[in-house]
Amino acid sequence: MKNEMNTFEKHESEIRAYCRAVPTVFKSSSNAVMIDENDKEFIDFFAGAGVLNFGHNNPKMKDAVIDFIQRDGVIHSLDMFTDVKRDFINTFVKTVLEPRGWDNRKVQFTGPTGTNAVEAALKLARKVTGRTEIVAFNRGFHGMTLGALACTANNAFRSSSGVPLNNVIRDTFNDMDALENLRQKMFDLGSGMLPPAGFIVEPVQAEGGVRVATKEWLQGVQKLAKDTGALFILDSIQCGVGRCGSYFSFDDLDVDPDIIILAKGLGGFGTPIGMLVNKPEIDKAWGPGQHTGTFRGQGISFVAGKVGLEYFKDETFNNETKRKGDIIRETIDALNSKYDAVKGVRQKGMMLAIDFESAAMTKEITTKCFENGLIIGACSTGEIIKFIPPLTIEEDTLKEGLSRFVKSVEAILG
Amino acid sequence: MKNEMNTFEKHESEIRAYCRAVPTVFKSSSNAVMIDENDKEFIDFFAGAGVLNFGHNNPKMKDAVIDFIQRDGVIHSLDMFTDVKRDFINTFVKTVLEPRGWDNRKVQFTGPTGTNAVEAALKLARKVTGRTEIVAFNRGFHGMTLGALACTANNAFRSSSGVPLNNVIRDTFNDMDALENLRQKMFDLGSGMLPPAGFIVEPVQAEGGVRVATKEWLQGVQKLAKDTGALFILDSIQCGVGRCGSYFSFDDLDVDPDIIILAKGLGGFGTPIGMLVNKPEIDKAWGPGQHTGTFRGQGISFVAGKVGLEYFKDETFNNETKRKGDIIRETIDALNSKYDAVKGVRQKGMMLAIDFESAAMTKEITTKCFENGLIIGACSTGEIIKFIPPLTIEEDTLKEGLSRFVKSVEAILG
Amino acid sequence: MKNEMNTFEKHESEIRAYCRAVPTVFKSSSNAVMIDENDKEFIDFFAGAGVLNFGHNNPKMKDAVIDFIQRDGVIHSLDMFTDVKRDFINTFVKTVLEPRGWDNRKVQFTGPTGTNAVEAALKLARKVTGRTEIVAFNRGFHGMTLGALACTANNAFRSSSGVPLNNVIRDTFNDMDALENLRQKMFDLGSGMLPPAGFIVEPVQAEGGVRVATKEWLQGVQKLAKDTGALFILDSIQCGVGRCGSYFSFDDLDVDPDIIILAKGLGGFGTPIGMLVNKPEIDKAWGPGQHTGTFRGQGISFVAGKVGLEYFKDETFNNETKRKGDIIRETIDALNSKYDAVKGVRQKGMMLAIDFESAAMTKEITTKCFENGLIIGACSTGEIIKFIPPLTIEEDTLKEGLSRFVKSVEAILG
Amino acid sequence: MKNEMNTFEKHESEIRAYCRAVPTVFKSSSNAVMIDENDKEFIDFFAGAGVLNFGHNNPKMKDAVIDFIQRDGVIHSLDMFTDVKRDFINTFVKTVLEPRGWDNRKVQFTGPTGTNAVEAALKLARKVTGRTEIVAFNRGFHGMTLGALACTANNAFRSSSGVPLNNVIRDTFNDMDALENLRQKMFDLGSGMLPPAGFIVEPVQAEGGVRVATKEWLQGVQKLAKDTGALFILDSIQCGVGRCGSYFSFDDLDVDPDIIILAKGLGGFGTPIGMLVNKPEIDKAWGPGQHTGTFRGQGISFVAGKVGLEYFKDETFNNETKRKGDIIRETIDALNSKYDAVKGVRQKGMMLAIDFESAAMTKEITTKCFENGLIIGACSTGEIIKFIPPLTIEEDTLKEGLSRFVKSVEAILG
Repeated sequence: MKNEMNTFEKHESEIRAYCRAVPTVFKSSSNAVMIDENDKEFIDFFAGAGVLNFGHNNPKMKDAVIDFIQRDGVIHSLDMFTDVKRDFINTFVKTVLEPRGWDNRKVQFTGPTGTNAVEAALKLARKVTGRTEIVAFNRGFHGMTLGALACTANNAFRSSSGVPLNNVIRDTFNDMDALENLRQKMFDLGSGMLPPAGFIVEPVQAEGGVRVATKEWLQGVQKLAKDTGALFILDSIQCGVGRCGSYFSFDDLDVDPDIIILAKGLGGFGTPIGMLVNKPEIDKAWGPGQHTGTFRGQGISFVAGKVGLEYFKDETFNNETKRKGDIIRETIDALNSKYDAVKGVRQKGMMLAIDFESAAMTKEITTKCFENGLIIGACSTGEIIKFIPPLTIEEDTLKEGLSRFVKSVEAILG
Repeated sequence: MKNEMNTFEKHESEIRAYCRAVPTVFKSSSNAVMIDENDKEFIDFFAGAGVLNFGHNNPKMKDAVIDFIQRDGVIHSLDMFTDVKRDFINTFVKTVLEPRGWDNRKVQFTGPTGTNAVEAALKLARKVTGRTEIVAFNRGFHGMTLGALACTANNAFRSSSGVPLNNVIRDTFNDMDALENLRQKMFDLGSGMLPPAGFIVEPVQAEGGVRVATKEWLQGVQKLAKDTGALFILDSIQCGVGRCGSYFSFDDLDVDPDIIILAKGLGGFGTPIGMLVNKPEIDKAWGPGQHTGTFRGQGISFVAGKVGLEYFKDETFNNETKRKGDIIRETIDALNSKYDAVKGVRQKGMMLAIDFESAAMTKEITTKCFENGLIIGACSTGEIIKFIPPLTIEEDTLKEGLSRFVKSVEAILG
Repeated sequence: MKNEMNTFEKHESEIRAYCRAVPTVFKSSSNAVMIDENDKEFIDFFAGAGVLNFGHNNPKMKDAVIDFIQRDGVIHSLDMFTDVKRDFINTFVKTVLEPRGWDNRKVQFTGPTGTNAVEAALKLARKVTGRTEIVAFNRGFHGMTLGALACTANNAFRSSSGVPLNNVIRDTFNDMDALENLRQKMFDLGSGMLPPAGFIVEPVQAEGGVRVATKEWLQGVQKLAKDTGALFILDSIQCGVGRCGSYFSFDDLDVDPDIIILAKGLGGFGTPIGMLVNKPEIDKAWGPGQHTGTFRGQGISFVAGKVGLEYFKDETFNNETKRKGDIIRETIDALNSKYDAVKGVRQKGMMLAIDFESAAMTKEITTKCFENGLIIGACSTGEIIKFIPPLTIEEDTLKEGLSRFVKSVEAILG
Repeated sequence: MKNEMNTFEKHESEIRAYCRAVPTVFKSSSNAVMIDENDKEFIDFFAGAGVLNFGHNNPKMKDAVIDFIQRDGVIHSLDMFTDVKRDFINTFVKTVLEPRGWDNRKVQFTGPTGTNAVEAALKLARKVTGRTEIVAFNRGFHGMTLGALACTANNAFRSSSGVPLNNVIRDTFNDMDALENLRQKMFDLGSGMLPPAGFIVEPVQAEGGVRVATKEWLQGVQKLAKDTGALFILDSIQCGVGRCGSYFSFDDLDVDPDIIILAKGLGGFGTPIGMLVNKPEIDKAWGPGQHTGTFRGQGISFVAGKVGLEYFKDETFNNETKRKGDIIRETIDALNSKYDAVKGVRQKGMMLAIDFESAAMTKEITTKCFENGLIIGACSTGEIIKFIPPLTIEEDTLKEGLSRFVKSVEAILG
């Protein structure tokens, strides 16, 4: 088996990471199952870091994509118009925007990664307000390019920038006192703090450990943004696209973001996409071509993404997501009751976290999971295990995966 | 026809740009031809801004990609190991690295856009040296995210950042005197200028107007980098992957870059990819996961990209590229002789530029080209038209496209 | 009278400020009285913004300075050794450092203004820790040069910098909750906030409106500094040198600053000086000449400053300061009781503040004071009047000044 | 003798510098002679780093200052009006501004050090233009506070800042090619370089080693400033006030600076002062109090400074300066002819430099000078010795000093 990985060890950069935790070569994958070159099957509770909400090789998407390629559809179009891009936009408008009364909003495709979309949102907020500072929150994750990285909280990532990460004010997620203190500073001409260009928040922090913004706090952030003339930006890259039991994870929080950032699951099939949803009065601050990107027009992502959007035509799919989320919850609640080393569980829809005593312990557990045929990952500063299986996972597979998880935990904690 | 574009005007961001120059909806494309919804055919001399070196829907790639999807290949894998990623790396090593004696180099996949790869290269240069400043050159284009944008020269892009673009020293491309002055500053303890972390250069500036680095100057930059302990970084995103008549546009310049940045054409099919080629002693400065990105493992790009690499197994393809480049050159040389309003032509391989008197004039010409069924774009600060058709373009199509170009120029210049 | 000021209106910069509030030409001054060219006498409750703690033209200082000049003493010595500098240091050690058990501390003379001394302190903190960020507080005032200005809170000053004011974390003075929140951020690897180089605090904010740090909070700041490995820096420029009833305004707070910053009153006579008091283990981070300044060796300030230090040989002088402070307090307490438009009073020793409803109101009052022969100034964002007469003011003069103040307030408030 | 210095070694900061080169305690000084506590006489060719142009304890100034103190003149006045400030301004206008046709210019007093004045000039340039970048030159010295330090070139000083020194573009002094290259960048929209707020230049670099700007180059800088809409700022702190044979060192260069920065010798007596001379259309960008400073109103500096200005009522004094400069030149020219280890001499008026092979060699020579009763200092990166005796030095003393210098050089070089 070692042999198969020679290429990577010899020729791939030392920066490689996930592959160190799951040291095998995968050859195929279907819905929530991945198969390696030794024909070992793994249940996937990681789903491409939240990209594969509709499963690996979703059959409807496969059909649509193959058909698209066979008919010589436009695979790559920069920001030129194509039929499939139009279909994607129309479906997004009808499925997502119209039901929320947001049909006048503008979608903006960016370079097809989350961090590219975040960079575009930051530029837009700064352009609209003529200000520089962005408020971002602890445990937040917004990407790796310099502008987004300045908003990302984890010092392990920040310390690799090699240059100062400026123009970001750091505050505490879900902390009403901290928010009130920030408000005071922003309205005090003697505080030394200027009103910001924007507030960037994940309604549910995914990499940060499934921390769920409360309605009170998120509305407080929105109000402070409005009161200071700043933009209210929701980074829905990992928590959006149905992951938390409705299309947006903030649907139940009665907020009205100026910019919504989407990526990951939006393309549906695992191919990249990055997109903003901008209020029209904000969007008009853009001049043509002020934030470009070669790969903005990804035909395959439009075709598969449209199939993904159709899952949200009614609430059936969301209800299933919640139901499966509760199945996972039951299992980890039980572990929480049983083990002192389990420090808590958190959930929204089908994104869940279980906290262990230490990063060392989670590493032992996830390694054991891998042995037992389960792919699952730690997040935050390492002490938290996150559950983000495909939303389409079959109930049997889900339960088998949970059973492998419990078995692995028991092997380590006894 | 107007009707087809309602969706975009109503729902897409005001930032849209290329689509304003080619206002039609495309439905299919094959090699160098794009077809719109009215069945009008366009010859494509733009090739997705240099992505589609192997043509739209390259038939070999289509077959490989469809087969890959049909067999449930791993479409999205983060940085986990897959069979197709291994095949891609092995083919890259054998086709590109080994012939250059670079088989010990390390490839690093980044978020799948050029700007993500540039950001990773900048981080690595800063990490290796413990320094902050990057030297970048006028007319250079390196991307839109904050770190890359600080290296990009065009003030039209820079001015949208909304925050200071720090930690970059700006110098003049292809200017030996300026380089000598920079050297003096860097070795003068009383100059106020510290030695930099790296020099980032495009061997052929593409967006900058097909400015071709001379051997003397590029070697001079490399020498100054080495003398100051800085990294020598070649951004080959648009000029690489065969565009200039050999795999790398700098193959004839006898340089030895510490980091090579690739993206655009590397994926072959129009699907995204971003990759660095690092010297091993530099690469080892990375710790696991220090620069991440969700979409680093793009199965389709690996599969199609491998097909693309196979074009370089011998010199046949490169020779064809040069031959077709010369065909274009002949045409634009003739225009240069005929019209005072043509101010010059430049070329390397199959990337060519023709300078006109003003940005307004090029706009009239490219608009006329569109009417005449030719897609071609301006670059730099607008007064230059760039030719980057697919390298695989059929000779007849190429000649027909050139004829449409000449006709359009004549229509405007008389 | 107008005529006398022609020179200034014609030839002096539009930036002039205090002279707009006290539009007359002064020709002489003695203790707490200033006399203008029309022989009008003014009682001075402003004392050169806190410089003239020992009165205008203090007779002992006059004698010492004239004698020094007559004997050709070294007026200007850079940082060379002179007899008078030695005497000043010895007196400072004996009078100030030894009684506090701090005789191993190092004094450092900087360019002779507060802001120069602050800049030196910031450099030292950054050098010692190898970190960049300084924590500074709302309403704090630390000077006008770029490094100090980044620590100064008032946005009216900050907005004139014309460049970003970086490397400062802003927090709230005297706010235990905010401090606790800051502590959490600094120990959370997922907060995005790095441990700072230093905390800079005024134990009593003077320009900020006589806000007196509580013992609990200031010790909290000191503890957080120590816990994070940062330096604890007390800016005693305006509140020190006896102003608050003992030599340092923090003498009763049981703190142990790593660096104390002094200027203003230290020179005694109104001639400039700037000085740090550094713990020896911190001071040794300096290499020779790393922060220079032409005017570090001011003979006149050493000679007069030594006379000033002698006032602190026992507690007599401090007791008088407190007694006079209480006299002022009594008057403004009465106004506070009488008028709704008075919003509060604050005091430490002989620095007091009375808050009015608005900046417009204080402007009317101080203008009336000037008419009535009293020089007194507003501070903070304009709504506060601050009392800082010479500590040596005669009781009769003090009472006459207070009577003029009350009369002026009554004239405005009715 | 050791004993006398115990205080300093025990209680003064490790940062002390000049005193390490001249390790004795001075007790008095008169014109160009300093006397230590052992009654050893030293001839002073350093003159307080260019402050004491009129000699130590200039008798006319002594009389005026003592009289001023005795009559209870206003020693410290912030920016309030005083009789002596008016006299100083009137004398400056009449003696300096009117003869140059500049009587409409505005003088602005800043915190009384050169670096404070530089900071004010930078703010004003940024405020007037709404831009951030300042162009500064290699070997330039402009001060130690953060804004000024960013303009200062010497990396030995810069490296102590502890934070990035931003918003300065570095170029090469007296280099027409570099200037032309800078011009190209500034007018190229594709250079990545924005037009600057100002250019700051010393007409004669003093700390930089007596490098004299050529007329062609300085006018070129002025023209580029005007063409780009930037301010042309001349830092005349060390080279002004008669040092180079006329009041301003640039009087013979036919330039018209927007801002002139003065400090050092302007106060005459060794007491501090800092002042800008602003064109009125620039000055009006200031709002009241936008750059403050406690010690802006220094009565003693006004009184003595007025005496200093009177030296320039006609050309007698300037002619003497030039004559004495030539006497020094003759001596160092002879050394230049005699010794290979002497690498060159430079001069303007009575500021001269002699270059030696190495910093180590100059250190030996200046140490020997001290033994021989001559105070003289090295500058730049250490390999240059600078001559800046008081302009008022008696011819005999000057010649005796030169003889001690020659003797010291011979002792080291043989």
